Amino acid sequence: MSTVQCVLSASDDTGVSTQMIKFAASISKESVVDIEGVVSLPEKPIEATTQKVEIQVTKVHCISPAIPTLPFNLEDAARSEAEFEKAEQSGQKLARVLQDTRLNHRVLGLRTPMNQAIFGGILDHVEHKFRDYLRSKKFKGVHSPKIISGSSEGGAAVFKLLYVNGEPVCLAQSPQLHKQMSICAGLGRVFEVCSIFRAEKSNTHRHLCEFTGLDAEMEIKEHYFEVCDIIDGLFVSMFNYLNENCQLELEIINKQCPFEPLKYLEKTLRLTYAEGIEMLKEAGIEIEPMGDLNTEAEKQLGRLVKEKYGTEFFILHRYPLAVRPFYTMPCYDDPAYSNSFDVFIRGEEIISGGQRIHTPDLLRKRAKECGIDLSTIKSYMDSFRYGAPPHGGFGAGLERVVMLFCGLDNIRKASLFPRDPHRLEP
Amino acid sequence: MSTVQCVLSASDDTGVSTQMIKFAASISKESVVDIEGVVSLPEKPIEATTQKVEIQVTKVHCISPAIPTLPFNLEDAARSEAEFEKAEQSGQKLARVLQDTRLNHRVLGLRTPMNQAIFGGILDHVEHKFRDYLRSKKFKGVHSPKIISGSSEGGAAVFKLLYVNGEPVCLAQSPQLHKQMSICAGLGRVFEVCSIFRAEKSNTHRHLCEFTGLDAEMEIKEHYFEVCDIIDGLFVSMFNYLNENCQLELEIINKQCPFEPLKYLEKTLRLTYAEGIEMLKEAGIEIEPMGDLNTEAEKQLGRLVKEKYGTEFFILHRYPLAVRPFYTMPCYDDPAYSNSFDVFIRGEEIISGGQRIHTPDLLRKRAKECGIDLSTIKSYMDSFRYGAPPHGGFGAGLERVVMLFCGLDNIRKASLFPRDPHRLEP
Repeated sequence: MSTVQCVLSASDDTGVSTQMIKFAASISKESVVDIEGVVSLPEKPIEATTQKVEIQVTKVHCISPAIPTLPFNLEDAARSEAEFEKAEQSGQKLARVLQDTRLNHRVLGLRTPMNQAIFGGILDHVEHKFRDYLRSKKFKGVHSPKIISGSSEGGAAVFKLLYVNGEPVCLAQSPQLHKQMSICAGLGRVFEVCSIFRAEKSNTHRHLCEFTGLDAEMEIKEHYFEVCDIIDGLFVSMFNYLNENCQLELEIINKQCPFEPLKYLEKTLRLTYAEGIEMLKEAGIEIEPMGDLNTEAEKQLGRLVKEKYGTEFFILHRYPLAVRPFYTMPCYDDPAYSNSFDVFIRGEEIISGGQRIHTPDLLRKRAKECGIDLSTIKSYMDSFRYGAPPHGGFGAGLERVVMLFCGLDNIRKASLFPRDPHRLEP
Repeated sequence: MSTVQCVLSASDDTGVSTQMIKFAASISKESVVDIEGVVSLPEKPIEATTQKVEIQVTKVHCISPAIPTLPFNLEDAARSEAEFEKAEQSGQKLARVLQDTRLNHRVLGLRTPMNQAIFGGILDHVEHKFRDYLRSKKFKGVHSPKIISGSSEGGAAVFKLLYVNGEPVCLAQSPQLHKQMSICAGLGRVFEVCSIFRAEKSNTHRHLCEFTGLDAEMEIKEHYFEVCDIIDGLFVSMFNYLNENCQLELEIINKQCPFEPLKYLEKTLRLTYAEGIEMLKEAGIEIEPMGDLNTEAEKQLGRLVKEKYGTEFFILHRYPLAVRPFYTMPCYDDPAYSNSFDVFIRGEEIISGGQRIHTPDLLRKRAKECGIDLSTIKSYMDSFRYGAPPHGGFGAGLERVVMLFCGLDNIRKASLFPRDPHRLEP
């Protein structure tokens, strides 16, 4: 979005009357207008995205008036915390616009410079780079069904509904099973960008009931590090691209919500889970070695890694098998561990992935051990009966990538029309 | 997918024993194997995608065996109608693989050369060109929620479910309302590629209960032809790209399912609805002038246009208002008509679009006239209260574009894992 300063001054030369000025002054804020005028040079640079010129208006026509009293002023919605503090110190009281108010009137709230930078810039670029990099590595874009029988991964809560034929079905919590089936179908390397549905009731700063998944799956020739190599190349090139090509957008975001640029290495650090546990232990934090990391431990590990290695983006791999989904491939040298990984940005999990089991017998055994009802995943299980190549992949969330890269404090700031347990509108 | 011929011959030089040949012969069809060998020149070109070389195998290892008896042979699934006829004439009876059998064992069925060309090629290219062209015209990719309160467009049947908070919600039948809201939010030009859900019970060759929408929406400066210009440039460049860059894929599809290359003009033909009706009338087909075209009339018009103008791709615009959705902008010179259009490929509708109403009063009036319950679209209606630019857009279906460009007889041939009233698996 661009802004420009328009000036009306009554004069016989321009044909602008005082009546016209009165009319222009009566147009409510945020109305849509057509302007005719002459470009001119202002005496000093202007506070608009177009700083060096202004327009001497000769005609103005209101195409679509806004209501006279807006739910909030955009200037108030666009202020930084620092501005509020400065005003308070000088005894001034500025109006704060609460998050729910912004979201209730989303169409208005989206017009702030920061939101234009995020939704008209960063999100689009992140998705574009995701596709662009993977296509350059011979991945093909696919689309798999979101309406599925059974639950897609067991685990988290699913949305249930009735299909047109009356059968109970659910919304996919991830494209996991179908992207694996695409590999079994001989497609080699696939990616999918799609809606992900999670019927979770917890209201946190980083969960949504619906978000945009960035998923990929590929044949593995020898080692699950081939998947890590793709993640490494993909995200480093994405971060480089954002820093080089979206400077203006990042500056605008930084102005309202200041953040430190993400620290990352050109070759992404890989630590084993055991090494991570050890680092935490040395710092006095005891973790059950075969259990999972909780959110707080992840944050602490993020801090320790940043101190020691100077990066806020790293891969933690070789997780205990017990804390991973049933389809995860156990390590060949120690089945208590698995060929799996999580990836972290600023101490928060951003990607989860690993090698998948491709042999029907082991898959059946692991599904049973994890308490999965085999009848609900029959067509998935059957997919491995016609010869299946070793494969692996990963999934990330578009909104979360943007949130963490830009150091935003809430995922709703990176979701165009967010859906959480309390929000269904607009 | 590539294929190559591998040869095993017992010899002391290569170290291949007769036992190894026996083992190799016992490997079931479609199994996944690792091969070591020496590339050599065959005496004559080979029936494989790699025609000029073959591999003299020295080692073979079966990584993942297929079950000994497959549900069908891939050679049977890959035959053209002509092959069946030829065989029949010579008294030979070849096994036919019915569509349901192919779809029941989708992972196997997808391994035919034609399916690899479609799902590992054409679909990916069509989506890529859609994005690439629109991004070059300053459209931004967005993602809008699929879980919405109310029904997204009234009309067609919707999937209903309960939200996490117990409220009744439905799955979006199109991103229509939210992409308009993105324009009201100041994003200027947006596109979205996303799942579309239609709880339709009719089982036809061209409908699915879930498909991939290709949607775009943009500010209009002066005329809805600005939207037609985008469609024109987008689809012509897409068709050109496919013809120039996907020759191999198109040849493979043509081999199994022969089709005539799509006839289209570099500048897309535009006809008014009245002109279309007139053409039909001259050909002896009477259509209610203010009603809609049925599927048969659309086919006939397609034939007439092809004869007269030499194109199978054209835009029919200025439809009667009564047959369009409530949000369609009436023509300023005659409110019985509307600033809307459909686009046809080979006599079938592929795109629907038009200018939308951007003034709250007219929108409210039209919604009421069309029997829409205003309370179900409150947040949409509210979006036009803060000043809204004139805008328009369109929606197409990815699978249908591929089906019609490639002259396929069934949309299931262009959907990776199709969902229809009778199919929920795999």
